[in-house]
Amino acid sequence: MKTVLVIADGMADRPLRELNWRTPLEAARKPSLNQIAETGVCGIIDPISPGIPPGSDAASLALLGYDALGIYSGRGALEALGSGVKILPGDVAFRCNLATIDSSMVVLDRRAGRIATEDAAELAEKLQRIKLKQSSNVEFVFKNTIQHRAILVIRGSRLSAAVSDSDPGKLGERVSEVKPLDHSLEARSTAKIVNELIREFQKTLRSSSTNKERAKHNLPPANVVLCRGAGTIPKVRPLSEIYGIRATCIAAAPLIKGVCQAAGMKVINVKGATGTLQTDYTAKTRAVVQELRNCDFVLLHVKATDVASHDGNIKQKVEAIERIDSMLGYLLKNINLDSTYLAITADHTTSTLTRNHEGDPVPVAIAGPYLRVDDVTKYDERACAKGGLHRIRGLELMPILMGLLGKTKKFGS
Amino acid sequence: MKTVLVIADGMADRPLRELNWRTPLEAARKPSLNQIAETGVCGIIDPISPGIPPGSDAASLALLGYDALGIYSGRGALEALGSGVKILPGDVAFRCNLATIDSSMVVLDRRAGRIATEDAAELAEKLQRIKLKQSSNVEFVFKNTIQHRAILVIRGSRLSAAVSDSDPGKLGERVSEVKPLDHSLEARSTAKIVNELIREFQKTLRSSSTNKERAKHNLPPANVVLCRGAGTIPKVRPLSEIYGIRATCIAAAPLIKGVCQAAGMKVINVKGATGTLQTDYTAKTRAVVQELRNCDFVLLHVKATDVASHDGNIKQKVEAIERIDSMLGYLLKNINLDSTYLAITADHTTSTLTRNHEGDPVPVAIAGPYLRVDDVTKYDERACAKGGLHRIRGLELMPILMGLLGKTKKFGS
Repeated sequence: MKTVLVIADGMADRPLRELNWRTPLEAARKPSLNQIAETGVCGIIDPISPGIPPGSDAASLALLGYDALGIYSGRGALEALGSGVKILPGDVAFRCNLATIDSSMVVLDRRAGRIATEDAAELAEKLQRIKLKQSSNVEFVFKNTIQHRAILVIRGSRLSAAVSDSDPGKLGERVSEVKPLDHSLEARSTAKIVNELIREFQKTLRSSSTNKERAKHNLPPANVVLCRGAGTIPKVRPLSEIYGIRATCIAAAPLIKGVCQAAGMKVINVKGATGTLQTDYTAKTRAVVQELRNCDFVLLHVKATDVASHDGNIKQKVEAIERIDSMLGYLLKNINLDSTYLAITADHTTSTLTRNHEGDPVPVAIAGPYLRVDDVTKYDERACAKGGLHRIRGLELMPILMGLLGKTKKFGS
Repeated sequence: MKTVLVIADGMADRPLRELNWRTPLEAARKPSLNQIAETGVCGIIDPISPGIPPGSDAASLALLGYDALGIYSGRGALEALGSGVKILPGDVAFRCNLATIDSSMVVLDRRAGRIATEDAAELAEKLQRIKLKQSSNVEFVFKNTIQHRAILVIRGSRLSAAVSDSDPGKLGERVSEVKPLDHSLEARSTAKIVNELIREFQKTLRSSSTNKERAKHNLPPANVVLCRGAGTIPKVRPLSEIYGIRATCIAAAPLIKGVCQAAGMKVINVKGATGTLQTDYTAKTRAVVQELRNCDFVLLHVKATDVASHDGNIKQKVEAIERIDSMLGYLLKNINLDSTYLAITADHTTSTLTRNHEGDPVPVAIAGPYLRVDDVTKYDERACAKGGLHRIRGLELMPILMGLLGKTKKFGS
């Protein structure tokens, strides 16, 4: 017995006036999603708890069965892990942007004109060469990923992720001082180190030849590093240890790859999987079928639905759902539902109206053998609410799926 | 976006033989309640947890989103707050009755013949003048409210609400000694202080001219103060801080006013709102519409359904429900459901058969924009159980309502 769990990022929504008060899921053509609902068991999930809008990091941890409220330790380290940066227990990692500020530290462009990855790499290399005072007892890693995006890792013996962002989050505001968020010595010293580092970065960036070259081409300088989302690796037991399974993750978004790595999963890089609306859906589904031969559990994550929602693009969201439906059609044809459970859910509701993550529950459907199939025939927010799974919490899904495989441990004797 | 939450005290019930095995809600004519159910999303709520009969204090705290099981700290302080008695953190407050006992301390009348408020005020003034030994390091406030009802507040540095009642709760039993309910020094010393105070009260009451006057008119003397429900103000963050909202409470019952004050809400006194079956329903609903102009969240509490239930009066309970239905009719006409959520629930089930609060869940319906409307077309205990909200806990309702307003904070990033 095997399990495939498909997570469509932000796929759930609220009814929209533009869709005649249907949700994008209700409006989309989705024969395969409906087939899963019809032949399986359905329900709704509060990823964290009712009414609470989940971040994708916390929601993914929950859907892998972890108590996100108890173990969540910031986004930075998960994003760093997923971006291929080596990160050790105790390291504090930040998501960073190479950005443009004016002489009074006011942010003019949070992405330095979506700086080319090549330019960013040149700058990152220069920043990495900065020598910190030996007395600080701290090392750092600065690594650019795609375009303006980068990761900063601080390594030392007494650090804390309880520090604020230097990234003000919007244009026209000044770069913030990083502040400790609790009274610990660790938080105070981490804030001090990061502030010093940011100042050193600025000096190096200001004098860099890369920025002089950019100025010649009328490109905004990348003259500051904005840091946000300080985090450490959450202390979780790997899925292999909890359930005795071999688990694989197929995702493009660095954050999800990071979460899955933290859970001890094998992370597959699929060519053409981009985490955008243009991602190669076929390549990803092929990879699922391939991986299923060698492992017990495959998580397939698709980001496109969330991207469309944050852009407030209803048409694009419906299209993304229809593409996901085609993926599932391929899976339904190419996996054996007599020996495989196929589950589909979303990590959270993203409203295309508010363009934000919302606290409404998400639909879930599980197809496969030996299920108590219910009467639900359609896969959407309202139809699934009538299903046999009722309303469950995010962290309950994984034990349900693993229970079907006989992989959950008996409690009591 | 705004929210109105209507709480009908003890409105939920069990099926009754006298109503042909329907509940009062099922038997009542209630077009507006049904309209809310039909155009909205429904469910059932366990105010505290399944099977546990909630007190109105704990249930109201839960429906405001607080973890009642964790923060509940007795009824006395909430009742005192709602009665307009100033109460500070650390103060221990009791609900009191002026009552009649015989010479061997046996209770003859728990309400001293429902003593007139004027007589009670005279006596309270005399009791307030009692001087405590300086060594006790304690002050007290004794304030009568309506008829035999009064509040006793003890103020000092090392007090505890973990003490028992002196009120035996029924006729024909002796006044109880107040006892510490845990082994703390604070509980022991508080019990000692209250017992001394009760003895001092008795001395003053015995010799009071008011009681002599009452004897002349053949009225039972108010010769004892019965204390119950020791409590402190619960340590909760105000709603304004949790959700960033301006919140108003419209209620007549002192307890509910106290709970709402503890939650940092503005409490409106509506002329004619009495907390009885004769309360001015129209004045209360008009106040809701008025308040909605200046705040984000209005709680409207109606006590009449609970009063009828405790009296075991089925006919009166059905009538009270029909009056609440008219109130909701007024609200449906006078608030804009394109920008307002209207929720209706009960704080607990009160059985008109057992005349007690019971642990059965209560129905809830929410109408308003952007809801995943379900198929439920009637508002009652059984119809709502089929709704899209499923079965939730009391403390989950407020995050759900606030999530719809975009007022809950994201968990994770």
